[in-house]
Amino acid sequence: MQIIIMDLGNFFNAHNIAIIGVSRDPNKVGHVILRNFVDGGFQGKIFVVNPNADKILNYKAYKNVTEIEEKIDLAVIAVPAPLVPQAIVGCSKKKIKDVIIVTSGFKEEGNYKLDTKLESLLKKYKIRCIGPNCLGCFDAHTKLDSLFLPRYRLSRPKEGGISFVCQSGAVGSAILDLATEQGYGFSKFVSYGNAMNIDESDLIEYLGNDGKTKVICLYVEGIKDGKKFINIAKKVSQKKPIIAIKGGTTEHGARAIVSHTGALAGSAEIYNGAFKQCNIVIAETLGDMFRFAKILEKCTKPRGKKVQVITNGGGYGILSSDAIVKNNLQFAKLSKESLKAVKKLNLKTENPLDLLGDATTAKYKAVLDIAMDDPNIDIILLIALYQTPLITTDIVDVIIEANDLKKKPIIVVSTGGEFTELLKKNVEANNVPCYTFPEEAVEAIARLVEYYGK
Amino acid sequence: MQIIIMDLGNFFNAHNIAIIGVSRDPNKVGHVILRNFVDGGFQGKIFVVNPNADKILNYKAYKNVTEIEEKIDLAVIAVPAPLVPQAIVGCSKKKIKDVIIVTSGFKEEGNYKLDTKLESLLKKYKIRCIGPNCLGCFDAHTKLDSLFLPRYRLSRPKEGGISFVCQSGAVGSAILDLATEQGYGFSKFVSYGNAMNIDESDLIEYLGNDGKTKVICLYVEGIKDGKKFINIAKKVSQKKPIIAIKGGTTEHGARAIVSHTGALAGSAEIYNGAFKQCNIVIAETLGDMFRFAKILEKCTKPRGKKVQVITNGGGYGILSSDAIVKNNLQFAKLSKESLKAVKKLNLKTENPLDLLGDATTAKYKAVLDIAMDDPNIDIILLIALYQTPLITTDIVDVIIEANDLKKKPIIVVSTGGEFTELLKKNVEANNVPCYTFPEEAVEAIARLVEYYGK
Repeated sequence: MQIIIMDLGNFFNAHNIAIIGVSRDPNKVGHVILRNFVDGGFQGKIFVVNPNADKILNYKAYKNVTEIEEKIDLAVIAVPAPLVPQAIVGCSKKKIKDVIIVTSGFKEEGNYKLDTKLESLLKKYKIRCIGPNCLGCFDAHTKLDSLFLPRYRLSRPKEGGISFVCQSGAVGSAILDLATEQGYGFSKFVSYGNAMNIDESDLIEYLGNDGKTKVICLYVEGIKDGKKFINIAKKVSQKKPIIAIKGGTTEHGARAIVSHTGALAGSAEIYNGAFKQCNIVIAETLGDMFRFAKILEKCTKPRGKKVQVITNGGGYGILSSDAIVKNNLQFAKLSKESLKAVKKLNLKTENPLDLLGDATTAKYKAVLDIAMDDPNIDIILLIALYQTPLITTDIVDVIIEANDLKKKPIIVVSTGGEFTELLKKNVEANNVPCYTFPEEAVEAIARLVEYYGK
Repeated sequence: MQIIIMDLGNFFNAHNIAIIGVSRDPNKVGHVILRNFVDGGFQGKIFVVNPNADKILNYKAYKNVTEIEEKIDLAVIAVPAPLVPQAIVGCSKKKIKDVIIVTSGFKEEGNYKLDTKLESLLKKYKIRCIGPNCLGCFDAHTKLDSLFLPRYRLSRPKEGGISFVCQSGAVGSAILDLATEQGYGFSKFVSYGNAMNIDESDLIEYLGNDGKTKVICLYVEGIKDGKKFINIAKKVSQKKPIIAIKGGTTEHGARAIVSHTGALAGSAEIYNGAFKQCNIVIAETLGDMFRFAKILEKCTKPRGKKVQVITNGGGYGILSSDAIVKNNLQFAKLSKESLKAVKKLNLKTENPLDLLGDATTAKYKAVLDIAMDDPNIDIILLIALYQTPLITTDIVDVIIEANDLKKKPIIVVSTGGEFTELLKKNVEANNVPCYTFPEEAVEAIARLVEYYGK
């Protein structure tokens, strides 16, 4: 099987973009796309195509894409399904090689004839296409944004290292919205729908070479070309982590796929086997996926799997211990020097190291300093419950400064309301992953260890 | 073994409360407790005991509890550990029968002599005690509040039906803070620490009879008297659900317990066996516990386990299907009438029923009406991704009105940022449990079905 390396750069970095099918109605898809380009601060140039209008949102409306004077790098097609082939012919005449087709109404709705027609046109004109039946692309850096969902409903994320490739548009946008709310930073987001001629493998290959992508998240319902996927994923996962969740791992779930993106499903065993072979981090749930993405984006390779727990809540220490055992991690044993230093602080020299409910920021700092220097500790799980009265807000600086030394991964657990969230956001903005519950943090640590252990 | 039914009402409803050990220093425990009573709007009467002050926060300071003229219903003791026995003697003289001892420094720190002394004094004077080494009690209705954590760090929850019994103070307060942020409503919260003479079983028995408690959550590290626990939990769980999480289910976790609350641990198998015998809902993680609490608080008994999924996101339908299979639930099959009605709406008659990305609020209403009336459907899993442009905010009313009919449980899934959260909060405030991810929702449904299936 021939693997063609595609340059998908235009889908994220295009300068001159034509939106084909911009309605005057502000609620229609094409109009929303135009508005999002405008409001989002896209730095390139937009060209609007609508045969029945002169001007939309102060943009000149071209009757046809061929009438645009300048070179077009990328077309976003939002016309009704029956008009898509005609739009493709126009793109071909205009020498546009890259298109995003957001329109639905192809094989996923049983319109196989139209589907075949579109496919053959794309082949004939050698046009690369994301979609149809998709949201398309969002780039947090360039602000290229074909997601036809209004910004008040779907917040756009800040710049960061996570890229998310998602077959399903609704799943993708919901998750993107949630992740934005939770402060995750993104590089690129792609909802690729029916994957007519660009599929998840092509996108993963591109993101593997993208300097701004640190970790790739993948929601997939079906993979058409398994060999291609395995070949590419194996190579990419040597460069950066790929986290995948497979929808339709049960028979009933698989049946639901057919009417969604028309993809062929496959058993959970086959997919999990392939994923493991590629050192892909497997997420069982959507919640897992983003919790894993956070640690893999922010943390570098740990030396080993010996975890030291530091806590001001005894119960959280216990739950962490249980989770460490269940996730096949190990407990660090303090070095002789560390033991001495910890005893000097009047603390029990155990793992979890319990600083007790009256722990001060200074005590956290002292213990963290010891743990950072202890060669027996590979990973620090720092539990800081900000409800206890003697922790001051300086704890944020203590954690960040320790982490900035880049000696070993520090993972923080803190649970709470507004006050806690404030401290968490500050810590996370400085590349320390924070989790709400000890079990979540330990599971994420296990994925970090597994990914780098292979 | 004799089971004494204790009336623990004073711990939540006491009118006249003495706080013994109120420092003038606003950062000290006793002072924070006083402040929380004052700021929280406690309707009863507070008496301050401090031998070295005249007045604290405008309250007259009594040299000794015995000097207080009025009858005292409950004493909160916050003096240093060595002074606790003396305080107990004072309480006895003042005929106080109920005390909360927040002070730590007993067996959990190896001070067995002091521990024994305190225990025998309580026995001698027949004083009921919550603690020592605990946060004590919070009642969302009466505002009785011995939690010595400032309110800006630990938000207090609104009134509701969840009561939370927690051996660990830090775990309890962190979770309480988080749950408050997420809009959960509470009846009572108890951190009972070393459980010297009131233990989890006593508290569960009391909450079983408490009209304001709809569901009991329990975090436990060790249960001293297993038979007593099983006897009580069996009875209570026939009245209302108990959800339990056991800390220290692994050997290492169990070892960590000893230095925390000094409780005896036990294997996961023993605990899980006992929990199952009592029809206690088992939570594996803290995250689970509150997700389960939500559905058990808000939903009544479902007729069976046949779930109908309604979605506007195909991918979420697929993930829900997978989760339904994994959690041993069943897919509802629409009745003949429902099939006809759904076809009329130009929808595929499948489960998941996919309303597609252009679903309107009206379509949701139409389908929800059909599902509410269909006798083949026991439970409705309604996925509403608010990012799609044609759902209006009226969807909230549609969901609430359907739920108000009380025909069958409706569980909502929606994922997103600010806009989504706003709609979610409105829906939840009207007794419809909402979840962020389909997998979480289905797992919660499975617990609801299991609890009522026994």
